[in-house]
Amino acid sequence: MESYPPSLVRLIKHLSKLPGIGEKTAARLALYILRSSDEDTKALSESIREIKNKIRFCSKCFGLSETNPCRICLNKNRDHTIVCVVEQPSDLAVLDKSRAFNGVYHVLHGALSPMNGIGPDDLKIKELIERVEQDDIKEVVLATNTNVEGEATASYLAQILKAYPVLVTRIATGIPMGCDLKYLDEVTLRRAMERRESATAE
Amino acid sequence: MESYPPSLVRLIKHLSKLPGIGEKTAARLALYILRSSDEDTKALSESIREIKNKIRFCSKCFGLSETNPCRICLNKNRDHTIVCVVEQPSDLAVLDKSRAFNGVYHVLHGALSPMNGIGPDDLKIKELIERVEQDDIKEVVLATNTNVEGEATASYLAQILKAYPVLVTRIATGIPMGCDLKYLDEVTLRRAMERRESATAE
Repeated sequence: MESYPPSLVRLIKHLSKLPGIGEKTAARLALYILRSSDEDTKALSESIREIKNKIRFCSKCFGLSETNPCRICLNKNRDHTIVCVVEQPSDLAVLDKSRAFNGVYHVLHGALSPMNGIGPDDLKIKELIERVEQDDIKEVVLATNTNVEGEATASYLAQILKAYPVLVTRIATGIPMGCDLKYLDEVTLRRAMERRESATAE
Repeated sequence: MESYPPSLVRLIKHLSKLPGIGEKTAARLALYILRSSDEDTKALSESIREIKNKIRFCSKCFGLSETNPCRICLNKNRDHTIVCVVEQPSDLAVLDKSRAFNGVYHVLHGALSPMNGIGPDDLKIKELIERVEQDDIKEVVLATNTNVEGEATASYLAQILKAYPVLVTRIATGIPMGCDLKYLDEVTLRRAMERRESATAE
């Protein structure tokens, strides 16, 4: 890297801190940025600063937002009596993009993971309970991931929420659409078989 | 992407312009940047601006540099009578990192490619000839790539340089080190066989 000018080496160093970007990819990106127009470079540089200055967590759902409450929590066309609990803002984004859900969200910012020292107090669980206590919530949909941590978190929340007059549901597990059975793991297959539904029902 | 705040969507858009970065990777990078420390984000943003402001081409070798001439062209410990011709600044960087060469460089900024409308006037060929005419150069090593364009460029330069009292060489082609013969293409194998060397020579 000594053959590159110091400022370029610095950019390569910063870029290679990003996830999935090694030193070679970082060098390729840095050389591309160097060849880009001044306008594009300025836009990229400014928009990196901008997200840090503008984006906060919504104080209600803890999703990412430039306003507080966020656009979703403020949207009157959404059903505020049904709350979907997700682990990360990125989960909220993909679910919302799918348009499968028109309620509001609650972002936990992680999942229970005793191995990594993440307990209930490290997640936005207290805040979820407060919403259930104070707002007029009829249903909580647990949409944490279906890996070990996500399942444990869902079980834990289901247990706690039993004490409240609210319907607690879990997103369905089964075989993803467009999938070839032979590539699926045994646990998914077993679950899908157990949860089989009538195919002749109207 | 509508579920992300506008400034985050803007950053994702800018990042996905980079080579090899699709929308999903861009979103992952943007969320990572959002979670990084203010310090790291500032450093990344500033170093993107910095390379555009600081880095110029060396007026002698056309490598990337913050000074003019560049550090390599100014280095008195290098052999200025031997010039290695490469296509891109990144080629200069990898060659120099290998420490295989202690002369100076000349970056063409491309290779001849009639298909893409790139002719001799689009490359720094005139400038190379000027160096050969004016400086005390004894050898020109052609280290363009060994693909079609690079080979054509090397042939073209070899032809032109015939008119000057300078030794013109081409980096050796053959089998890369650590390579399994069965994965190599026929052209490389044939070349390596034609250029075989005595293995018993001292």
